Amino acid sequence: MPTKITLTEDDVPRQWYNLAADLPSPMNPPLGPDGKPVTPDQLAPVFPMNIIEQEVSQERWIDIPRGVLDMLYKWRPSPLHRATGLEKALGTPAKIFYKNEGVSPAGSHKPNTAVAQAWYNKEFGIKKITTETGAGQWGSALSYACSQLGLECKVYMVRISFDQKPFRKTMMAVWGGKCVASPSMETQAGRDILAKTPDTPGSLGIAISEAVEEAVMDTTGKTRYALGSVLNHVMLHQTIIGLEAKKQLDKFGIKKPDIVIGCAGGGSNFAGLAFPFTYDKINGADIEIIPAEPASCPTLTKAPFMYDFGDVAKMTPLLPMHSLGHHFIPAPIHAGGLRYHGMAPLVSHAVEEGLMTPVAINQLECYEAGLLFARTEGLIVAPETCHAVAATIRKAREAKEEGKEKVIIFNLSGHGIMDLNSYDRFMAGDLKDNELSQEEINASLEEIKDHPKAFVKKTGKW
Amino acid sequence: MPTKITLTEDDVPRQWYNLAADLPSPMNPPLGPDGKPVTPDQLAPVFPMNIIEQEVSQERWIDIPRGVLDMLYKWRPSPLHRATGLEKALGTPAKIFYKNEGVSPAGSHKPNTAVAQAWYNKEFGIKKITTETGAGQWGSALSYACSQLGLECKVYMVRISFDQKPFRKTMMAVWGGKCVASPSMETQAGRDILAKTPDTPGSLGIAISEAVEEAVMDTTGKTRYALGSVLNHVMLHQTIIGLEAKKQLDKFGIKKPDIVIGCAGGGSNFAGLAFPFTYDKINGADIEIIPAEPASCPTLTKAPFMYDFGDVAKMTPLLPMHSLGHHFIPAPIHAGGLRYHGMAPLVSHAVEEGLMTPVAINQLECYEAGLLFARTEGLIVAPETCHAVAATIRKAREAKEEGKEKVIIFNLSGHGIMDLNSYDRFMAGDLKDNELSQEEINASLEEIKDHPKAFVKKTGKW
Repeated sequence: MPTKITLTEDDVPRQWYNLAADLPSPMNPPLGPDGKPVTPDQLAPVFPMNIIEQEVSQERWIDIPRGVLDMLYKWRPSPLHRATGLEKALGTPAKIFYKNEGVSPAGSHKPNTAVAQAWYNKEFGIKKITTETGAGQWGSALSYACSQLGLECKVYMVRISFDQKPFRKTMMAVWGGKCVASPSMETQAGRDILAKTPDTPGSLGIAISEAVEEAVMDTTGKTRYALGSVLNHVMLHQTIIGLEAKKQLDKFGIKKPDIVIGCAGGGSNFAGLAFPFTYDKINGADIEIIPAEPASCPTLTKAPFMYDFGDVAKMTPLLPMHSLGHHFIPAPIHAGGLRYHGMAPLVSHAVEEGLMTPVAINQLECYEAGLLFARTEGLIVAPETCHAVAATIRKAREAKEEGKEKVIIFNLSGHGIMDLNSYDRFMAGDLKDNELSQEEINASLEEIKDHPKAFVKKTGKW
Repeated sequence: MPTKITLTEDDVPRQWYNLAADLPSPMNPPLGPDGKPVTPDQLAPVFPMNIIEQEVSQERWIDIPRGVLDMLYKWRPSPLHRATGLEKALGTPAKIFYKNEGVSPAGSHKPNTAVAQAWYNKEFGIKKITTETGAGQWGSALSYACSQLGLECKVYMVRISFDQKPFRKTMMAVWGGKCVASPSMETQAGRDILAKTPDTPGSLGIAISEAVEEAVMDTTGKTRYALGSVLNHVMLHQTIIGLEAKKQLDKFGIKKPDIVIGCAGGGSNFAGLAFPFTYDKINGADIEIIPAEPASCPTLTKAPFMYDFGDVAKMTPLLPMHSLGHHFIPAPIHAGGLRYHGMAPLVSHAVEEGLMTPVAINQLECYEAGLLFARTEGLIVAPETCHAVAATIRKAREAKEEGKEKVIIFNLSGHGIMDLNSYDRFMAGDLKDNELSQEEINASLEEIKDHPKAFVKKTGKW
């Protein structure tokens, strides 16, 4: 039996799976600042209508357009590996599998939705897409996608990352994307913030505000904004990961995994692998589904489920989600992709429904897991992905203690080739844990106490 | 028709192809300092005997051991893409294909031979492998391979690269390899050089001397040395690239390419793609086979074919090859993997036989080609690979002028994710061409005028 299953192009799924169609209770809609549900028309200056339609769709299966499939073929189907080296090192009876999304041109799962969003924008007649990026994964994925379709791409990159991660910036430039440090002088939001705090390191919240502003202020109507996680249509586009994985597990002779794991920041790579298995769980399968988040940003494990804004400047609608408060600034851990105050509404809702059991893991345990994975499986994974590896190792050790032959599958969301300095710091003993305390969470939520009371609902079913 | 052909594990070739069996005239053997052919016993302190047997084998097909196949499965078969985006941008009637070796864990073709060499060493009872590395591709590939088999790995990295490329060093450390700057205080060769020139930036020649010394001085007999290019067994291990590519072209409906291209430094990635097609050419197929080298290190296009040493310290046997002289120090171009004074004897010999038609290309043309490739095909390739892309673009433009539907295939030897700073410098206009002049070549060859006359033969058939 080989330790890897490669599907052919013919095996790439032709439809995405929409979890919204199968949730036991319906999701709450995004709200405007007036507390009323946001209408598609209100979102039209921000997103093209074909994407808005996907965002609100209740259809279970949504066809992947031919043009998107052609672009996905560049690196899909991604391989599914059996981690025999890791299993051996752990001495576990568990069978561990991982889906490698690091093989995409930009090195992570992000291009799965970037090519889809770029394609829909182009179909709608859009010429330019704006976005924000933190560590740079999403900005480079969207630059890549736009380069393939001849669209302009403008990326507002959080200033501290812009200065610290020059190679991500270069990557975007190679693909023709224009990347500026945020806050910038190019938007009113940016100028206002620079006037007050010229030395600010920036934040994802600020960058979102700038990107949205540029899109809606373009009087030609040919510019829209794109988001790389959180929203329903992004989760939808990522489900190709789990749909492929099911076919591949089947070829390994596995009818159903016992445990499905992904790291969770905004939620999209986790959702991509997990949602197709969540469908099985809703239909009676016994599957443990685990989003793994950093202990320094424990959105699902410690933050309340409520309505909150996606950005500091409150330019986004209010979304029903687990949130540490839109002012929250996470500790500067290396897993930049997991440093987000909120969580995808679909993931948040599924957790509320009891379909998923999140865990929070400290930074050092994650790097230790990543190092063991690199030495046993040979792949150097992103700091974000290390959280999924660490959760997997916990479960594989549990299986050993219980003497059970559990089948575990996790999503290898991205490679760590551009994050080697963080491994270097870990091996040198320069990293530490940053577990967020309840006091810090309370203090962060206190900051949104002026938040309309009706919007804040404590954890519990809607 | 998809633009990519992915084979399954079942399609991975089970044998390597040995060009030595089919060359029209036999190769000349490596010579010792006494001018006599080196015997396998003389090489025994440096390489394990099972590798030495491969080095001198005249068998056409050599079985790939099961254990090596299992390791190759991690990332093989590698995909073959049709470059429809590049074709369109060039407006060429040519059909362009590329084999993507950048998908390996270390990011290049190097692991193809690293896992084989590590496996044979382990089979022979070896516990530790020493090697040298310039830019770090080979050192990281061997560290990766050793980590998979539980072998120790010691890498002497040229000091200037050690200082300038910290991430490659970290990559080796993540895989458990021990990397030291060369010259080091750990060998007599290193100490001697440091005593004379404490500030030397080091060189590949010096690093080879140190790595060989550590291997042969180990009194336990459990240490051997490994080389990542140039030698016959390395070319052999890389032929899996071309053998897979032939199957994939066949699935694209292509019976035979018209043109086969690879960049050439030591020669191994080029040989890997080209040798299986060279076999077809020897058997009558009309195929143009092009090694593309940098104009700053024009080994095949401008240097004589002669016997020369592989290293500065003359610790290696004399090899029959195209060489700029073993003292030659190439300009510091970013394509570090192509900065070698010599060339694989098998490639050199095949060029002498008229089977291949090398070209030399300047740095700026290469980066321009790499940038166009990234924007049209979406993959950012290594500076070395840019030479193959540039040669491909030249040929595709020729096909356009001639109005011919030529089929071109080139080897994408590695990704450029760890070389983004060089793209940055190119886009900023900071790079320049460094074409080597005939005067510089003459001056370099003058330095080996004390070289025994019998060993130096001018270009021409033996």
